Amino acid sequence: MKYGVIGTGAIGGFYGGKLAQIGKEVHFLFHRDYDHVKQHGLQVDSCDGSFHLDPVNAYRSTQDMPQCDVVLVGLKSVNNHLLQDLLPPLLKEDTLVVLIQNGIGIEEDVQKMFPKVELAAGLAFICCAKSEPGRVNHQCYGYINIGNYSCKNPSVIDAVVSDFREAGVDANEVEYFEARWKKAVWNMPFNGMTVALNTQTDLLLQNPHTMQLVKDQMMEVIQAAQACGVKNIDDTFADKMIDNTLHMTPYSPSMKLDYEFHRPMEIDYLYTRPIQEARKAGYRMAKLEMLEAELRFLEDIR
Amino acid sequence: MKYGVIGTGAIGGFYGGKLAQIGKEVHFLFHRDYDHVKQHGLQVDSCDGSFHLDPVNAYRSTQDMPQCDVVLVGLKSVNNHLLQDLLPPLLKEDTLVVLIQNGIGIEEDVQKMFPKVELAAGLAFICCAKSEPGRVNHQCYGYINIGNYSCKNPSVIDAVVSDFREAGVDANEVEYFEARWKKAVWNMPFNGMTVALNTQTDLLLQNPHTMQLVKDQMMEVIQAAQACGVKNIDDTFADKMIDNTLHMTPYSPSMKLDYEFHRPMEIDYLYTRPIQEARKAGYRMAKLEMLEAELRFLEDIR
Repeated sequence: MKYGVIGTGAIGGFYGGKLAQIGKEVHFLFHRDYDHVKQHGLQVDSCDGSFHLDPVNAYRSTQDMPQCDVVLVGLKSVNNHLLQDLLPPLLKEDTLVVLIQNGIGIEEDVQKMFPKVELAAGLAFICCAKSEPGRVNHQCYGYINIGNYSCKNPSVIDAVVSDFREAGVDANEVEYFEARWKKAVWNMPFNGMTVALNTQTDLLLQNPHTMQLVKDQMMEVIQAAQACGVKNIDDTFADKMIDNTLHMTPYSPSMKLDYEFHRPMEIDYLYTRPIQEARKAGYRMAKLEMLEAELRFLEDIR
Repeated sequence: MKYGVIGTGAIGGFYGGKLAQIGKEVHFLFHRDYDHVKQHGLQVDSCDGSFHLDPVNAYRSTQDMPQCDVVLVGLKSVNNHLLQDLLPPLLKEDTLVVLIQNGIGIEEDVQKMFPKVELAAGLAFICCAKSEPGRVNHQCYGYINIGNYSCKNPSVIDAVVSDFREAGVDANEVEYFEARWKKAVWNMPFNGMTVALNTQTDLLLQNPHTMQLVKDQMMEVIQAAQACGVKNIDDTFADKMIDNTLHMTPYSPSMKLDYEFHRPMEIDYLYTRPIQEARKAGYRMAKLEMLEAELRFLEDIR
């Protein structure tokens, strides 16, 4: 299988890099890091074993990339409008596009742009960040769940899962809606709260007041998911997520890094959309509505 | 009538100063500003006309103060435990203690300390701050509502209202519970949100997301008040408060100043207590619970 990676930041660099490391054919689109990677290759500093790729099938433009069987999209969701131009050169009739992004409603919107393209969600459970040009820092975790949104041929999903496993990445196929909402249970409290209170995951959980707040916000996501018809997330999932986070290295989620580095925050798909979906289903995420407003304010005044 | 002022900051300085200015006998307790006021007097820079008092009946200790007919308490509510020692020297059998403080549950707690003392709430609608030692800056508004909590002799309340009016302060007697909760409608959103988002009232209302959030929080206070049995605050009161604030000078509420100057914030009476009271009555102030947690976090980590 031929892989394409659009958006080779932390996520695209790590997952694409793992596949390339075991010899899979992976074609990477770079933006600012192109020259660096062409000269020096791609470095992945990883808690599971660091590695270096050189040479890398690196491109400045998807116009120069071959058609691929699978495209991994690691763009920030705020840039998804770019897919309109970026994606077509990589598409064959049955290309699977895996959107490794956070949020609710992403596949619905990309499907509107490309009604015939087969889509899946990639839910990356990983602490990683781009530390400098051409360099990914993978701190902990790393598993990826794949949720089929509109792929007609299940064997393609199986093949992606199998390739990831061969590359040492714990991958599993999961139910799409359940997976997207489960990810939101962690994402919605921690991404926004670390921005709103200028802190990290560990301090939020050390303080009893914000620990309870995080729990309350997680329960709002679980209840929103249930209102939207996702039945397999029960209330104990919040405690499980908190417990996992307590065992993590102190962590700045991607939105915190975006805010710190004056990049746009993914408020639309991480907050506005799930809040809207829940509201349509008759449930109000009161505390997360407040967090959304705080994030909008912080983004607007800077 | 003989007045005592405990806590001569912005509030005690302004209201006590207005009474002294027209020749009422007012005895002021000072803490850090004592020497300054003894030497230079008390300056009130006011939008309604500035004035200077010199000499001032200034004291370092309530032990040296005379018994008073009316005591105006302008302490921060975080220091109310000090009343145990500060108040007794000023008390006669029928002294009225007016607690010019923000929050819910204050009179209940002070009454527990002094079961026989007659209490009233003073609700100050004023933008003012102590700008430097012995100097109060009164930006706008200035009216005060007095709510009788346990005063047996209504004519004393009448006399206080009358003295304030004579001093050019718009004063009115109001129903205690309604008045405390009405004040909370403004206080709970603006005090905390200006801290949480490091901003001022005007910017909160210029941004459509935080404007809506402030409105939502005001509606939570109104619904909490209704749950607690206060019937005379209707939903239009939120719009009225927002409209008033839109016409105010950009303002940093007292909690914002406390936070900026590393003083303790009045979280207990402004947030924890009303949230508890509402919860006991079966109503949850979801967004204000979140704001309380954020404020606790900000106070704990600094």
